Amino acid sequence: MDLTKITSPSFLKNMNKRELESLARDIRSFLIEKCSITGGHIGPNLGVVELTIALHKAFNSPKDKFLWDVGHQAYVHKILTGRANQFDTLRQFKGLSGFPKRMESEHDEWETGHSSTSLSAAMGMAIARDIKKERNYVVPIIGDGALTGGMALEALNHIGHEKTNMIVILNDNEMSIAPNVGALHSILGRLRTAKEYSKAKEELESLMKKIPVLGGKVASTAERVKDSLKYLVVSGVFFEEMGFKYLGPIDGHDFEALEKTLDHAKKATGPVIVHVITKKGKGYKPAEEDTIGTWHGTGPYKMETGAFVKGNVQGPAWSSLISESVRKLMKNDRRIVAITPAMPVGSKLEGIQRDFPDRFFDVGIAEQHATTMAAGLATQGMKPYLAIYSTFLQRAYDQVLHDIARPNLNVFIGIDRSGLVGADGETHQGVFDIAFLRHIPNIVLMMPKDENEGQHMVKTAIEYNDGPIALRYPRGNGIGVPLDEELKTIPIGSWEVLREGKDAAILTFGTTIPMAMSAADELSKQGINTQVINARFIKPLDTNMLHELMAKKMPILTIEEAVLQGGFGSAVLEFASENNYYDAEIDRMGIPDQFIEQGSVDLLLDEINLTKEDAVNRIQKLVKSNSTIGTKQV
Amino acid sequence: MDLTKITSPSFLKNMNKRELESLARDIRSFLIEKCSITGGHIGPNLGVVELTIALHKAFNSPKDKFLWDVGHQAYVHKILTGRANQFDTLRQFKGLSGFPKRMESEHDEWETGHSSTSLSAAMGMAIARDIKKERNYVVPIIGDGALTGGMALEALNHIGHEKTNMIVILNDNEMSIAPNVGALHSILGRLRTAKEYSKAKEELESLMKKIPVLGGKVASTAERVKDSLKYLVVSGVFFEEMGFKYLGPIDGHDFEALEKTLDHAKKATGPVIVHVITKKGKGYKPAEEDTIGTWHGTGPYKMETGAFVKGNVQGPAWSSLISESVRKLMKNDRRIVAITPAMPVGSKLEGIQRDFPDRFFDVGIAEQHATTMAAGLATQGMKPYLAIYSTFLQRAYDQVLHDIARPNLNVFIGIDRSGLVGADGETHQGVFDIAFLRHIPNIVLMMPKDENEGQHMVKTAIEYNDGPIALRYPRGNGIGVPLDEELKTIPIGSWEVLREGKDAAILTFGTTIPMAMSAADELSKQGINTQVINARFIKPLDTNMLHELMAKKMPILTIEEAVLQGGFGSAVLEFASENNYYDAEIDRMGIPDQFIEQGSVDLLLDEINLTKEDAVNRIQKLVKSNSTIGTKQV
Repeated sequence: MDLTKITSPSFLKNMNKRELESLARDIRSFLIEKCSITGGHIGPNLGVVELTIALHKAFNSPKDKFLWDVGHQAYVHKILTGRANQFDTLRQFKGLSGFPKRMESEHDEWETGHSSTSLSAAMGMAIARDIKKERNYVVPIIGDGALTGGMALEALNHIGHEKTNMIVILNDNEMSIAPNVGALHSILGRLRTAKEYSKAKEELESLMKKIPVLGGKVASTAERVKDSLKYLVVSGVFFEEMGFKYLGPIDGHDFEALEKTLDHAKKATGPVIVHVITKKGKGYKPAEEDTIGTWHGTGPYKMETGAFVKGNVQGPAWSSLISESVRKLMKNDRRIVAITPAMPVGSKLEGIQRDFPDRFFDVGIAEQHATTMAAGLATQGMKPYLAIYSTFLQRAYDQVLHDIARPNLNVFIGIDRSGLVGADGETHQGVFDIAFLRHIPNIVLMMPKDENEGQHMVKTAIEYNDGPIALRYPRGNGIGVPLDEELKTIPIGSWEVLREGKDAAILTFGTTIPMAMSAADELSKQGINTQVINARFIKPLDTNMLHELMAKKMPILTIEEAVLQGGFGSAVLEFASENNYYDAEIDRMGIPDQFIEQGSVDLLLDEINLTKEDAVNRIQKLVKSNSTIGTKQV
Repeated sequence: MDLTKITSPSFLKNMNKRELESLARDIRSFLIEKCSITGGHIGPNLGVVELTIALHKAFNSPKDKFLWDVGHQAYVHKILTGRANQFDTLRQFKGLSGFPKRMESEHDEWETGHSSTSLSAAMGMAIARDIKKERNYVVPIIGDGALTGGMALEALNHIGHEKTNMIVILNDNEMSIAPNVGALHSILGRLRTAKEYSKAKEELESLMKKIPVLGGKVASTAERVKDSLKYLVVSGVFFEEMGFKYLGPIDGHDFEALEKTLDHAKKATGPVIVHVITKKGKGYKPAEEDTIGTWHGTGPYKMETGAFVKGNVQGPAWSSLISESVRKLMKNDRRIVAITPAMPVGSKLEGIQRDFPDRFFDVGIAEQHATTMAAGLATQGMKPYLAIYSTFLQRAYDQVLHDIARPNLNVFIGIDRSGLVGADGETHQGVFDIAFLRHIPNIVLMMPKDENEGQHMVKTAIEYNDGPIALRYPRGNGIGVPLDEELKTIPIGSWEVLREGKDAAILTFGTTIPMAMSAADELSKQGINTQVINARFIKPLDTNMLHELMAKKMPILTIEEAVLQGGFGSAVLEFASENNYYDAEIDRMGIPDQFIEQGSVDLLLDEINLTKEDAVNRIQKLVKSNSTIGTKQV
């Protein structure tokens, strides 16, 4: 059928199994084709085609509330709620979001991006419903990976206690982002194999009743009882212990099983968990055969072969560069232990995992635990390397502050995907880390100008033994500079003059350096000689250099691909104020006080005026204003 | 015995039961006496006297590692490791910490204060031990309340999966800080009643073996099997499901049971959980009889009667004032739902709990869940009031940012115990919230000058429907101003001139206002007329007033009882820079870039120069410097 004609999911109500299966096929073809051009989270969405259709058939959205945990698996939901015609703009500037968005549809009541939030939000919605004495179903859909996140477990605990009416769909796709870890996963694994025992409890009870009358067959029955017992323990007891009614496991690609079980769930009172087994990538061979998570989220690919379309990349991927530098140092430094919260592929830690399996830990989606575990390692003289995306480090703010920085432990945090990330949008921009780390005492925070400095900063961080040190690096690829053979350390708090100039100075770091350099080029044509400084240490500042600049009354422009409030530029303002440079002319460029939407990084930078042109204009104004003040002072 | 003579716990090794019991009595008397003078967490410590003695007898600290979760129950541990003679200085400036401190003793390898960190840290320590091929026991001691924290559950999951050797002591005191909530608690409750069934599994298996030969007794055996089954399900299965060997529950005041079970635990491989039942306040009648948590942590009290020694308080407790204002508004506004993460007593929510049980939720130690649940409620048009301590809000940074502020939901956050808190020290100072909230888009952040403005701010927050709004208020009591009958709203972003002046301006808010006023008094004697402004909105700033001040080239001093980096003063610097007031003279007072230790708030303020004298000096300098610049400009 023509999916772009769908305006509401109500058409599903009268569809029979054959029609549903045909629809599922159409949706799969649509997704495979559209994502081959735009890129996107193709694997997770192919896994939930039947499940999403069955949910929209069984419930009445938007009266009933679906909460898509993480949210990247909501493409089918978007198609069924009238958004198929926007898929050409998926994850693009001003286009269809890759996640549920309240502004986009009344069917998206819960916005996501970060993992494990759906159960807490569902609890809030269910409480609101009950207070308002309304009647509707609240249906969070959560993956087995997201369920290992602490806040999901907190919610599970509370929901079970309050016996709140809701239907939790556990989408067990056997592999969340990376092959899953954790005891919870092994329980789910056992549940999976225990499919035929899903009624173990009833079976057991009926067996028990039969024992007295079985006579000579008692022995073998007892054996059977033991087997049943075993499966009683593994099948759903965990969730029932938490206060949930457990249904399943069922095949998430079987419309009949889904319909029957969802009907059953709708009739229950109290919290229900429906355990659905799905296959990521289902229906598209390259994605189905993926074992490590390559097809979780992708860029464009050739639909026929599944070959990824390579962009114009110059240097190595930043994640690879940093991880490989750590790996090299792990050979001779047995203190180093690498930790990732479920991002071994994203953070390119496969080499470390392969070479040093005993010093590599993927702890699952558990940023808080990962961070404090690193602190525990550091108390014993180890040198933990915590690789974590900037946006997910937000989850561990208190752990960095309370468990690492307060006791000043030697933890090396690699902050992956710092700065704007592009297509993932608001929920994933790595633009807050400077503002939320800079005010934490004891921390060193740095960002390299290029890959070569990046590898030296890895060495610097490993050698540093005076407390926590964090290295932020961007998403994407380096600029292609030659890499030194020998790694060296960089003096903590030392900046570097990249270009001399006497009229004004730009202080910047990381990804905005090339822009600053070309602004300086442009300015020099106008006779304004602009110094460009690689302010590679965001904390501590290079106070010698700042004193020198401010003593000379040099106008200063700071540039950062991070939020302005409390950011690096503010640190420079604070320095000026603390040192009584009251007439210092300091202007700041960075991310304004708003959430930054999705889109290519270049478009976004343009949108927020974080461009060469803006830098040029600002320096011009500063220099002009400075000469005026200068005149006054004569 | 004379506890101050203890230098190491090794003396315990040869003690018999009678001697241990005598020691326990001595420790209890000591604690009850010392805490009656200094105040402290008397209830939790009285509960773990025998447990702590038994642990130090069974293990060899510091080779073996004890990790006291939360940490306020480590007094007995401190006594046994040679610190009894410092108890007169408990929780005082430069005195003995109320929590484990690495700098204080080699027996304190893990520092705490915030809850639920011990399992993650223990995992780190155990991994380090295994990599270094050392042999020692890692023993986290965690309460049933702390176990509901998400990061503890994340850790439990990971430890169970990795099968890491460690001995987790679950200190189940039936009541953590407040009467506990959550499914986990009800599981523990069932375990408690199932004491006699602690060997259910073995019992069951042996029964099974007997079935074939029991002949006519089969029926009754089957009944017994069913009973055993029931208890099999409840006793420890939950933890065994998570991959732990479960021992207990045992009486935590019975030295023989403790010794036997700890010996058993030491022989096991993989993770073990020892479930110990203790009674908070044990041995001191007023604390034993406490049902709501009054004796969790106290100030000084009369030892004989348990009557609390009242300090000189003027106004109502801030927590009461704010909670009662919310309660009043709940009568006529059914949108309001109050949420606390385990602090109904601390945040004085008892009135709300009593009057509006269906709109009150204590979610347990689960700040992340509490925050996102509030977001879920807000999506449905409710007005959630989240009451949370400043220091614990750190745990929910990402939830505030990602789940509340990003979709701009109407959540009212009451930030309790903002600013310095005194005796609890580094881990509990509420000094980071401005810096970690101010850079989050969409948020309104305010702090009242007194109780009357506090109640109006509650009204303001409830009436505000344009996104999240946070009201910070300090620990302790108000200054005793009269309270208006009628609550009113305050215009968002409006400051208030408290005192006129033309030579300089102090911008401050909350607790530092009286100090600023008296600095202005002092300055006026010197002929410097200082304006004092109640900058009650930290975000958004009162830009009209700032423009006016800066246009007049008025020297400005900002004062805040919060970290300087990225704080309110930095917001004023940012405003000046953004609006090209390059010659604005702005000086900032606040908390320097270090963790602030324990001590009375007055002593601490003195230590960090956050005093009237400092304010006077700074204004003098500013005015002098301003007149110099003024001269230059003429």
